[in-house]
Amino acid sequence: MSAFLDSLKWDNSGLVVAIAQHVDTGEVLMQAFSDRAAVSETLQTGRLATFYSRSRSGRWCKGETSGHYIKASARRAGCCMYMDCDRDSLVYLAEPIGPACHTNAPTCFFTQLDASGGEVRQAGDHHSREHAPMITLYALERTIAQRRAETEAGTNAGIKPSWTAKLLANPELLCKKVREEAAELCQTLEESEGKERAASEAADLIYHAMVLLNAQGVSLEDVSKVLRSRFGTSGVEEKASRPPNPQT
Amino acid sequence: MSAFLDSLKWDNSGLVVAIAQHVDTGEVLMQAFSDRAAVSETLQTGRLATFYSRSRSGRWCKGETSGHYIKASARRAGCCMYMDCDRDSLVYLAEPIGPACHTNAPTCFFTQLDASGGEVRQAGDHHSREHAPMITLYALERTIAQRRAETEAGTNAGIKPSWTAKLLANPELLCKKVREEAAELCQTLEESEGKERAASEAADLIYHAMVLLNAQGVSLEDVSKVLRSRFGTSGVEEKASRPPNPQT
Ligand SMILES: [Zn+2]
Ligand SMILES: [Zn+2]
Ligand SMILES: [Zn+2]
Ligand SMILES: [Zn+2]
Ligand SMILES: [Zn+2]
Ligand SMILES: [Zn+2]
Ligand SMILES: [Zn+2]
Ligand SMILES: [Zn+2]
Ligand SMILES: [Zn+2]
Repeated sequence: MSAFLDSLKWDNSGLVVAIAQHVDTGEVLMQAFSDRAAVSETLQTGRLATFYSRSRSGRWCKGETSGHYIKASARRAGCCMYMDCDRDSLVYLAEPIGPACHTNAPTCFFTQLDASGGEVRQAGDHHSREHAPMITLYALERTIAQRRAETEAGTNAGIKPSWTAKLLANPELLCKKVREEAAELCQTLEESEGKERAASEAADLIYHAMVLLNAQGVSLEDVSKVLRSRFGTSGVEEKASRPPNPQT
Repeated sequence: MSAFLDSLKWDNSGLVVAIAQHVDTGEVLMQAFSDRAAVSETLQTGRLATFYSRSRSGRWCKGETSGHYIKASARRAGCCMYMDCDRDSLVYLAEPIGPACHTNAPTCFFTQLDASGGEVRQAGDHHSREHAPMITLYALERTIAQRRAETEAGTNAGIKPSWTAKLLANPELLCKKVREEAAELCQTLEESEGKERAASEAADLIYHAMVLLNAQGVSLEDVSKVLRSRFGTSGVEEKASRPPNPQT
């Protein structure tokens, strides 16, 4: 451990950059700094992300005051910590317990910038993820949720309803589409339709399955957690393959 | 723009932390620093992620030498840049052109650490993503690819084949499972089976669909790119809903 700690490229204040990332959604939750003691503690306990507080000049176990810990050992096997090529930056792949930000926002990065440096966020509400950096799949989920909210609030009255709104209003159509898209995806393999077609049909299936999940109040993060809980040392797919009942 | 730049909390060297993240996979690609000019250039051009090189004390447009740019405007609408709560750290949500690391690794964070500070990575090969910080869905994809590689290399000979290996060896079974799991997911809505069951069936469907994609050499990143290309100012689902042909 000490040889490893010696090998890190500490800055003039004895710190390295530490980035906490959500293991399921991929959100960058917060960026802080870690000193030798914090890196050592996070690695050895493998439980809670610990940093160095520059404002208080001391150890800072995120969540110790608020209860909003960042669980570092988000996976059963292996550690959560990753180092960059020049040894001065760490990623903690982690599971946040509650909001990661002291403002109660899910991530500290709740402000999007426009081309002129304007700040884009919900006025007076930085608790939502509306302008947080979400990767494509989760951004799609957010868009689906927005369409639903617009429909429920009636703010789209008079406007031609979106396909998402139509699907949400018609569970029969929605289920029909999910079954159809699954069949079309299978067909790309059965009929050797090529990679492009396979990617396109998978996109169709994932989109429609996500609308179906939204209709039931289930998030992609929930699904991701199920997949993660099935992880084992022998690999996720062993568990994923075990059906809840023999007919599955 | 100037008011915004004034408002950032520059460190003693006039820098803020800049984190480049892959818009599709969520990988943290690299962490560097940006000065006032770099932030301004990245925002205004909205095209290529630019940083400040501390070693060369000057402007550093990532990729200008190697061709391995990081495309900052990964989405049609809105900017790629996000700021944290205390204004000293930025996330660039971006699309890398080629490897992000000067070592040719896809991400600079190719070294995983174990509890004793041991470095876990492929000996002599940091080009793979094998020990990079991948979020759950992409880690699952990586596991599926590993099972396939083991089967093809015969390193699992004599060992009971994994469910993934069985599926890959039997396209008929694989397609049957994808159709079945789609039907089971629909059933959770049709029969109001509850959130937990819906999340579990969605996990089943996604896992099996990912094996089917692997069988065709298609990655989740490919699928994500399709979904992203369908994004528009009016929201992704409008495009996602437009079938390639009327029967779809
Ligand atoms: Zn570095
Ligand atoms: Zn969460
Ligand atoms: Zn914060
Ligand atoms: Zn607030
Ligand atoms: Zn389709
Ligand atoms: Zn900060
Ligand atoms: Zn690097
Ligand atoms: Zn190499
Ligand atoms: Zn099932």
